[in-house]
Amino acid sequence: MSSSDIFIGETIGTAVLVLLGGGVCAAVTLKRSKAQNAGWVAITFGWGFAVLTAAYLAGGVSGAHLNPAVTIGLAIKGATPWSDVPLYLASQLLGAMIGAVLVWATYYGQFQAHLTDPAVLAAHAGNGEEGMVDPKAAPKAGPVLGVFSTGPEIRNAAQNLITEIIATVVLVLAILTEGLNDGGNGLGTLGAMVTAFVVVGIGLSLGGPTGYAINPVRDLGPRIVHSLLPLPNKGGSDWTYAWIPVAGPLIGGAIAGGLYNIAFK
Amino acid sequence: MSSSDIFIGETIGTAVLVLLGGGVCAAVTLKRSKAQNAGWVAITFGWGFAVLTAAYLAGGVSGAHLNPAVTIGLAIKGATPWSDVPLYLASQLLGAMIGAVLVWATYYGQFQAHLTDPAVLAAHAGNGEEGMVDPKAAPKAGPVLGVFSTGPEIRNAAQNLITEIIATVVLVLAILTEGLNDGGNGLGTLGAMVTAFVVVGIGLSLGGPTGYAINPVRDLGPRIVHSLLPLPNKGGSDWTYAWIPVAGPLIGGAIAGGLYNIAFK
Amino acid sequence: MSSSDIFIGETIGTAVLVLLGGGVCAAVTLKRSKAQNAGWVAITFGWGFAVLTAAYLAGGVSGAHLNPAVTIGLAIKGATPWSDVPLYLASQLLGAMIGAVLVWATYYGQFQAHLTDPAVLAAHAGNGEEGMVDPKAAPKAGPVLGVFSTGPEIRNAAQNLITEIIATVVLVLAILTEGLNDGGNGLGTLGAMVTAFVVVGIGLSLGGPTGYAINPVRDLGPRIVHSLLPLPNKGGSDWTYAWIPVAGPLIGGAIAGGLYNIAFK
Amino acid sequence: MSSSDIFIGETIGTAVLVLLGGGVCAAVTLKRSKAQNAGWVAITFGWGFAVLTAAYLAGGVSGAHLNPAVTIGLAIKGATPWSDVPLYLASQLLGAMIGAVLVWATYYGQFQAHLTDPAVLAAHAGNGEEGMVDPKAAPKAGPVLGVFSTGPEIRNAAQNLITEIIATVVLVLAILTEGLNDGGNGLGTLGAMVTAFVVVGIGLSLGGPTGYAINPVRDLGPRIVHSLLPLPNKGGSDWTYAWIPVAGPLIGGAIAGGLYNIAFK
Repeated sequence: MSSSDIFIGETIGTAVLVLLGGGVCAAVTLKRSKAQNAGWVAITFGWGFAVLTAAYLAGGVSGAHLNPAVTIGLAIKGATPWSDVPLYLASQLLGAMIGAVLVWATYYGQFQAHLTDPAVLAAHAGNGEEGMVDPKAAPKAGPVLGVFSTGPEIRNAAQNLITEIIATVVLVLAILTEGLNDGGNGLGTLGAMVTAFVVVGIGLSLGGPTGYAINPVRDLGPRIVHSLLPLPNKGGSDWTYAWIPVAGPLIGGAIAGGLYNIAFK
Repeated sequence: MSSSDIFIGETIGTAVLVLLGGGVCAAVTLKRSKAQNAGWVAITFGWGFAVLTAAYLAGGVSGAHLNPAVTIGLAIKGATPWSDVPLYLASQLLGAMIGAVLVWATYYGQFQAHLTDPAVLAAHAGNGEEGMVDPKAAPKAGPVLGVFSTGPEIRNAAQNLITEIIATVVLVLAILTEGLNDGGNGLGTLGAMVTAFVVVGIGLSLGGPTGYAINPVRDLGPRIVHSLLPLPNKGGSDWTYAWIPVAGPLIGGAIAGGLYNIAFK
Repeated sequence: MSSSDIFIGETIGTAVLVLLGGGVCAAVTLKRSKAQNAGWVAITFGWGFAVLTAAYLAGGVSGAHLNPAVTIGLAIKGATPWSDVPLYLASQLLGAMIGAVLVWATYYGQFQAHLTDPAVLAAHAGNGEEGMVDPKAAPKAGPVLGVFSTGPEIRNAAQNLITEIIATVVLVLAILTEGLNDGGNGLGTLGAMVTAFVVVGIGLSLGGPTGYAINPVRDLGPRIVHSLLPLPNKGGSDWTYAWIPVAGPLIGGAIAGGLYNIAFK
Repeated sequence: MSSSDIFIGETIGTAVLVLLGGGVCAAVTLKRSKAQNAGWVAITFGWGFAVLTAAYLAGGVSGAHLNPAVTIGLAIKGATPWSDVPLYLASQLLGAMIGAVLVWATYYGQFQAHLTDPAVLAAHAGNGEEGMVDPKAAPKAGPVLGVFSTGPEIRNAAQNLITEIIATVVLVLAILTEGLNDGGNGLGTLGAMVTAFVVVGIGLSLGGPTGYAINPVRDLGPRIVHSLLPLPNKGGSDWTYAWIPVAGPLIGGAIAGGLYNIAFK
């Protein structure tokens, strides 16, 4: 696979992934969106079909990793050369940032309406996280940060990290075993479809505590964009949490790669 | 592909697309429908399976474009001769109008019940669009226009156009890359299924601001039918908005075709 | 295909279809069911996966028509010999009746709880159909008839018939064109999956007015069983409506067969 | 298939099945979960995609039975040697227990929050089962037992057993007929996807009365873990019901195997 294929496939693919994934969060969250309050089923299927669309689009170009945890897992398995890893990761991060900007462009009016609505701002102001020793000291997430990045329901680094690791192991292990079921051949489009439903499943089943980043750039890229965009009353980008949805998925991808080599090879 | 294949496949296919797509809007909107208030997940899956049914039916006949944005994208890619484009577009518009008439036939009793219900009419009368400089001057959409055509939550031509362009680029780019994932072969039925889920995904993720026309005839054909049908108290057909769901998808399809030629060829 | 294959495949297949299809109606309707009020999305996907399960099971045995409208359509297309039609139809009706009995066995306790609940009975007693000239003269459907058979939201024979015809044409035409998309070959399991999603789509989009029988035996078989079962306070079986979900789908299947021969052959 | 393949595939596969299946129950049940009250559609799709993920992962290793009822059915069909059955069953039970522990690890904070919430405990204290002769004598299920194991809405051993048997016959018969539709070949990934949707369908349609165990280890393994875990205020593990979701699925699997041999071979 050439460097330009990797760059093009991963940048465009991850941009589409985050455009659609962040898009469903915007659709369900923001005022003046037709999908406001459409619920958790909408969010999880939205992310799943984001994966499907991006993997369908980029699969034939770069292999559609779209996620550093997947790239690490494939490198440990030996299916991706380690020398390609930096380009995969850089392209994914760039794509994720582009995707987040496109969400903003798509929902520009809704962001403005939501962030200037007095009821939204008042409700958010009183929304300290329960169960913290000192709520006033809490890094405060802005009212639309959830459209960009994940955040925990209960803030506890060890618990949150374990949740992200477990969820990512499931994702990457499923991707690494692709084709074992069919005589070892890659699956192309059918594999993209299964991966999409696996992601819906992980969201439905393991997304409750942290919002299932399971992908470092899906969280970090949009968080950087959130910190840069000129959104009114946007609040903080919650950088104290930002390392968990990066570290957890990377650890999970590595564990999945090791588990694959031990148990499935 | 012969002219009669194009005409038959695109007319029947687009009629089925709009029958099922408009049908789910009727089902969820109208009084005395068993599906009233079934929600956004129902609407997005309804449109997705409308695409699946129509593409399954017409794929082997005309290639199942069913959408001028797709035809334009395929022509720019070089997969459809430009000389076939006018027949594709005319057949699609005819099919969309037939489909809208079939929605009316299927839901005839529900349209009558809804449009003669005093509570519906009273609620709609007060339903000026928020945030407009002069609500009285607003082109007023009728109470069931949403069953036929799309409309924005926040009326702003530039924003609405950008949203439709972005959503259509995702759709058409996914269709143009079909098969790259599988050694370049077309996918037939499996491709129809993936496209359907991509459409569900676009609806869930990018449909919030404008209702995702992403197809000029899907919007224009039913809007013409709405203006002609003898529905009681039907209200206006909102012609001032009508150009956006035509122009946006056409621009999006052209961008997707160009992007394909630059990045994926 | 041998007579015993037709008999076994269609009887068992249609029994499974109606067991799962009637089952989701029981699940969503009856008191003391974990799925009570799960909504229209649950019903439509429940019926779709009922088709999938039944077609997957019986496809390799009898071709999995499971529906007289499909059998008629295939006979008109020339894909099924007319001499086999009576056995197909008889087996389908027998299977549908067995399926309805199995729904009763599965939900026995829920039927008892629902039909002896004073609140349910009181609510149902006042539930005359709106808009009728003389509600007292209306054929009264019992409080759980909807678990067995379909009924219209607005009772008008011509409208209801048209709705069932249109919905069945879509279903049968999709089935008749199976494989056109893939070089004319049958699709086996993938075709079963697409058909299932087509049925979900028809339910979401065209099910609002009449509850989409789109299959004569799916309605008639369970209606016969409803009239025979010793359910407490079960009320009438609404025989005055019973001919519409038989005639409509048969006419629709025939129209689809003719349309196929004219337009797609 | 080697013993180590069976052990690895079934243990890891069933662990993933129960992690995701129990996970969606935790997600929808527990306080401080983003998916709380996401509803029955979320639960049924969560379990379906749990099957998909686990079968995709383990299919190429052990054949992905993941369920003693499936193993029994395949043994009766003659597709799995009886000598392998004990290892399949032991691995499945071990995997189910590991999966339940992983649910606990993933939702640790949510379990703590839920089980120490005064409102939850007060509501649960008054939650005797209706319709019992002597509610005080009822084996009381703890407030989060439903995250681990199934329980009936109406407690009646014969009814509950029949429900589990019928639902399992549908599942196992569908699995045994895999490939009949496609010339007798196994289906690999496509078969895993169909099985997943069959499981969604069974949940939607037949899950109302008992919560559809349809798998002895999916119920028994997590119940053992529930009895051992140091959860606060966890309440009883309802051992008096525990034999039904074991015996029912085993009987159902055996009936399906016999029915297959009589009708489909």
